[in-house]
Amino acid sequence: MDNVQRLFEQEPFLHEPTELYEPIDYTLRLGGKRLRPALLMAVNQMMGGDPSNVSVAALGIETFHNFTLLHDDLMDKSPLRRGKPTIWNRWGENTAILSGDTMYALAWRYFLRKPHENLREILNCFNETAIEVCEGQQYDMNFETRNDVSLEEYMMMIRKKTAVLLAGAMKIGAMYAMADEESLRSIYDCGINMGLAFQIQDDLLDTYADQSTLGKAVGQDIRDHKKNYVILRALAMCPRLESAALQKLYNTPKHDQHSVEQILYIYNNLGVKAEAEKEIRRLLENAQNELENINVPNDRKTPLKELLAMLSGRKK
Amino acid sequence: MDNVQRLFEQEPFLHEPTELYEPIDYTLRLGGKRLRPALLMAVNQMMGGDPSNVSVAALGIETFHNFTLLHDDLMDKSPLRRGKPTIWNRWGENTAILSGDTMYALAWRYFLRKPHENLREILNCFNETAIEVCEGQQYDMNFETRNDVSLEEYMMMIRKKTAVLLAGAMKIGAMYAMADEESLRSIYDCGINMGLAFQIQDDLLDTYADQSTLGKAVGQDIRDHKKNYVILRALAMCPRLESAALQKLYNTPKHDQHSVEQILYIYNNLGVKAEAEKEIRRLLENAQNELENINVPNDRKTPLKELLAMLSGRKK
Repeated sequence: MDNVQRLFEQEPFLHEPTELYEPIDYTLRLGGKRLRPALLMAVNQMMGGDPSNVSVAALGIETFHNFTLLHDDLMDKSPLRRGKPTIWNRWGENTAILSGDTMYALAWRYFLRKPHENLREILNCFNETAIEVCEGQQYDMNFETRNDVSLEEYMMMIRKKTAVLLAGAMKIGAMYAMADEESLRSIYDCGINMGLAFQIQDDLLDTYADQSTLGKAVGQDIRDHKKNYVILRALAMCPRLESAALQKLYNTPKHDQHSVEQILYIYNNLGVKAEAEKEIRRLLENAQNELENINVPNDRKTPLKELLAMLSGRKK
Repeated sequence: MDNVQRLFEQEPFLHEPTELYEPIDYTLRLGGKRLRPALLMAVNQMMGGDPSNVSVAALGIETFHNFTLLHDDLMDKSPLRRGKPTIWNRWGENTAILSGDTMYALAWRYFLRKPHENLREILNCFNETAIEVCEGQQYDMNFETRNDVSLEEYMMMIRKKTAVLLAGAMKIGAMYAMADEESLRSIYDCGINMGLAFQIQDDLLDTYADQSTLGKAVGQDIRDHKKNYVILRALAMCPRLESAALQKLYNTPKHDQHSVEQILYIYNNLGVKAEAEKEIRRLLENAQNELENINVPNDRKTPLKELLAMLSGRKK
């Protein structure tokens, strides 16, 4: 993913008025995994595309992703992102709103920078993805105030909030390479499965990661009463009475060390971590199978397979 | 502008999740002047375009405009818009952020709905306009905390915040009709002059309109210590010492009826209303002259001229 990082290093983000662009520069240089553009470029390469045509889309998709993080952090009032203060936290809420809006427009500027015979379809794919991401964030917020969210509803939500953007990035990479409809479908489904696995991993890491590796507080979802895969799976695994008790414990108005540890103790007794890991493996195998379906020489799939393998073992 | 209103009435905005789309439906059905789409369509007609091709762009530009109002109202904490509660006021800040983001994406959906041989250039024009609007809003917020804003800086700000969107809408209408470069330039400059005139009228109306006609409180800019054309022109018209005194009076931490009336008294003594009206006439004449430059039969200019005439006499 170094080539993606280089793309960002070469881009100038500081313009007038600096109050608007300084937070954008800060956000886009914070780094992060650059996973979506890396996927976009790996798929483009797999389908025989020209890498020089697709770097604008890679920059566009990552800029869009960072815009969504910026506004999500504001809505969730998250103080830190990648171990650094978030935009609303450092510059205030209005700056977070407006710099975010501007980043969204900058994402479009990248996508529009180069002509392509498929451009309208590509932009449509990007835009419909963006709409689904917004819908996913709304469901996520709706779930905060509900106590009856099912695991199925949760999967629908993370599909929209997280998976469609990975899948959309990969499909766009393939569209730039003029891939056929069947390959586009396999690639998209591969991305959806990867995205779901990715989010469940995130949920697991929130509960079980090493805090210094993760760059943010561990157990934050519990303290925020956030529905994630771990709690919803645990609730689904419990018999009815125990489930109600766990629900009540999870909803403790203000968690302390003790209540968090009680929840972790229940998780361990249920073996929810192993179950979540099994689900992640299943989803990654689905992704792998979709990848096998794609009719290109095997060696061209190597970069994408490496990304998949890397995701399987990630620690943050 | 009835045809534009009909376009919006025919569009379905309510989808799932309703928490996201209900505020969008509310915003897009609130009405308003529908000025930007009306201008877009009038210019398209003037340049010999096909109205059925351009309705998507009309919907797109108005949806974008309403998105900017939604986020601006949130940033400014304005309680009312068109006499009705604003989104953040009725549904909360997070809904205002996310429904706004979604409206921005819906604007793109309209623009992408139909192919056009000039589509990439059209979308670029739309997007660069959007970026300038964001920059304009940032300058506007920057000016709130400054006491040395010049009339010149103010004109630069309203050019970005208001005028470029009118000009962009008109240029897009012409681009759909495949207008030549020279006409595009005249049309854009016509729009810039109209937009500046429009904003100065807004500023005048904020100070001098009839409250029930305007649909919001009169003198709100004074109470918010908002820099507008009227105060900046008044400051520029005063000798230095009086200017400092007016500045101080304008900055009164909490205005009451008396301090607002004192300011209006000074405005009247200076004759700032007449000066602002003279500037509006000058800008509308510039717009008129750009319109005369465009090489199409005179009768085709009638709808646009009627819009211009209507703007000259508006009361809200």
